[in-house]
Amino acid sequence: MRFHALVEVRLRAGIADPQGATLERALPALGFESVEGVRVGKAIRFDVDAFDEAAARAEIDELCRRLLANPVIEEADVSISPEPGSMAAGGRAG
Amino acid sequence: MRFHALVEVRLRAGIADPQGATLERALPALGFESVEGVRVGKAIRFDVDAFDEAAARAEIDELCRRLLANPVIEEADVSISPEPGSMAAGGRAG
Repeated sequence: MRFHALVEVRLRAGIADPQGATLERALPALGFESVEGVRVGKAIRFDVDAFDEAAARAEIDELCRRLLANPVIEEADVSISPEPGSMAAGGRAG
Repeated sequence: MRFHALVEVRLRAGIADPQGATLERALPALGFESVEGVRVGKAIRFDVDAFDEAAARAEIDELCRRLLANPVIEEADVSISPEPGSMAAGGRAG
């Protein structure tokens, strides 16, 4: 079965975010006075084939730990949705 | 009233994504054979003060157009949620 995953990787609270700080400094000059607390993270999307949603989530969690996020300074949120039109593979035959 | 915003900025379909391609090339060597279609975007979070949700959304849409996304190659998804504990300001008095 195929799933679509969205992983949001963001800096942990308290870790300096120079990219967000730069954005925030630019805002008043553009007329945005009421925006604050800007933090910039990554939004990583991909497709994964797995037997079921639990297997997909386990694989994606490991992927986050090993490649996508640095757990010392970053945390990752995972959202999974079944790909439309994807069929459960092997559910009955297996 | 204070809202929390999450803006996902991603490359439009068909625009080359070297960062996603590099990630994808690294996956088989790490044992992830079933992941494909990796695309890397930005997840930008911030707080905004606005009279109501419609006003917040209008301001954030303009912010996306003018600063956060390059509309030629990128598209932006905006999610807004009221900040917990935030009070509607001026709703009755105004």
